[in-house]
Amino acid sequence: MNRQPIGVFDSGVGGLTVLKQLVLRMPRERLVYLGDTARLPYGTKSKETVLKYSMKNASFLLEKGVKCLVVACNTASSLALDELRKNFDMPVIGVIQPGAKKAASASRVRRIGVIGTLATVRSKAYEEAIESYGSDIEVTSVPCPLFVALAEEGWVEDEVTRRVAERYLRSLKDKGIDVLVLGCTHYPLLKPVLSQVMGKDVALVDSAEEAANEVASLLREKGLAAEEDGSREMCAPTVCLTDRSLHFLELGENILGLPLNEVEYVDLG
Amino acid sequence: MNRQPIGVFDSGVGGLTVLKQLVLRMPRERLVYLGDTARLPYGTKSKETVLKYSMKNASFLLEKGVKCLVVACNTASSLALDELRKNFDMPVIGVIQPGAKKAASASRVRRIGVIGTLATVRSKAYEEAIESYGSDIEVTSVPCPLFVALAEEGWVEDEVTRRVAERYLRSLKDKGIDVLVLGCTHYPLLKPVLSQVMGKDVALVDSAEEAANEVASLLREKGLAAEEDGSREMCAPTVCLTDRSLHFLELGENILGLPLNEVEYVDLG
Repeated sequence: MNRQPIGVFDSGVGGLTVLKQLVLRMPRERLVYLGDTARLPYGTKSKETVLKYSMKNASFLLEKGVKCLVVACNTASSLALDELRKNFDMPVIGVIQPGAKKAASASRVRRIGVIGTLATVRSKAYEEAIESYGSDIEVTSVPCPLFVALAEEGWVEDEVTRRVAERYLRSLKDKGIDVLVLGCTHYPLLKPVLSQVMGKDVALVDSAEEAANEVASLLREKGLAAEEDGSREMCAPTVCLTDRSLHFLELGENILGLPLNEVEYVDLG
Repeated sequence: MNRQPIGVFDSGVGGLTVLKQLVLRMPRERLVYLGDTARLPYGTKSKETVLKYSMKNASFLLEKGVKCLVVACNTASSLALDELRKNFDMPVIGVIQPGAKKAASASRVRRIGVIGTLATVRSKAYEEAIESYGSDIEVTSVPCPLFVALAEEGWVEDEVTRRVAERYLRSLKDKGIDVLVLGCTHYPLLKPVLSQVMGKDVALVDSAEEAANEVASLLREKGLAAEEDGSREMCAPTVCLTDRSLHFLELGENILGLPLNEVEYVDLG
């Protein structure tokens, strides 16, 4: 039994889709979430800058006494995972590898599409991870910069969003993919439109779910899981944000499905 | 004659619309531009955070020996102008007051619309500034969060952008305004669509142009203008960015209409 918390960070609220899966999968684990709302988004920024912010976030969570680190952001997972593993002596789990593994096992036609931020797509992290699970797989990646703004605007089942999705996803449909990886933590919010545009024969892979499974397995393997104590009570996650933003609190409660009453605001510079 | 440079800052590249107007209006002035690309956007962030970043930007420009400070960002002008004026002993010019003055003088029906980021609209800075020029004027403000993403995606004359604009601007059309203030430095990029949606009887006020005129008048009044030296050469502005982002360089060159060959990268923490 290990009662230390699991540390989770993202550039903002998108990573709450991962936090939610962690809560559902491991209701007895204590969770500390850091959303770097003062410096979001990461998806348009350089590797150097995303690395710098990720190191600061990880140091903050380390001070909170976490037993492992979940990088609940596709951009930071793409650009900063190796460096975090080098610098922090604890398990570091990103969202790319779990999503890639699931996608590779789900594709029959061996053609997979990946959508994400500019930075994630440029990094080719998903291509490399998917190819490590099957060198016969053809991966096509498309950046979809407007999706985050549309999800945050709440236009999730909407004619405008459908048109934007049709434009972004056209080349992936033409490729005849059978699996689409939602390579940004905001994108699961747009699942209804994405399903509609891609059609029922294309499976959508949500890295958040896969990452939560990966974290659960890893904690069990390493003997770091919080032991079942017979109680049925779910631990409410501790949420820390670097900026006080009403809009994001509202959005966050929608994503998490829990009230965000007790948010701690922290200044990381 | 004063050969010190004019300092200009924005959260990113949007402020280049202001820089461009300053170059056109005062070709002999030296200009130093700081784009805080590592921490953009400001428009979704809290007053406290925008204030902190604005102070850091202004301090950086002060070290560059500037003679005045142009806040080429509507959000920072809304939230940080008073504090900057208190803390820096030099003229500080924002984009709100010049845009508000122009709008008030241009409106015959005394109903003005303002569009901007969430933070700018929440601040009510335009309402207050416009009302100071005419207490009979009714101001209606609408946040348009997707416009920045659409402008940055380059979808400037586009069916999707037209639909988004129709949705955002509907309430302003219903109000019967005759002046629309483009209260975000990105929005002038969308002028064709905005004109089309609002119709030819609604004048669009671009705060960038008005701010450049204001800076020119102020420098002349205070004896701070660079004297005409008879040369016809235009000074190329010095551009500093806090993050190295290829996408923004491309966009920046489009906005400025000049190549951004010599960009200095600076780390403001």
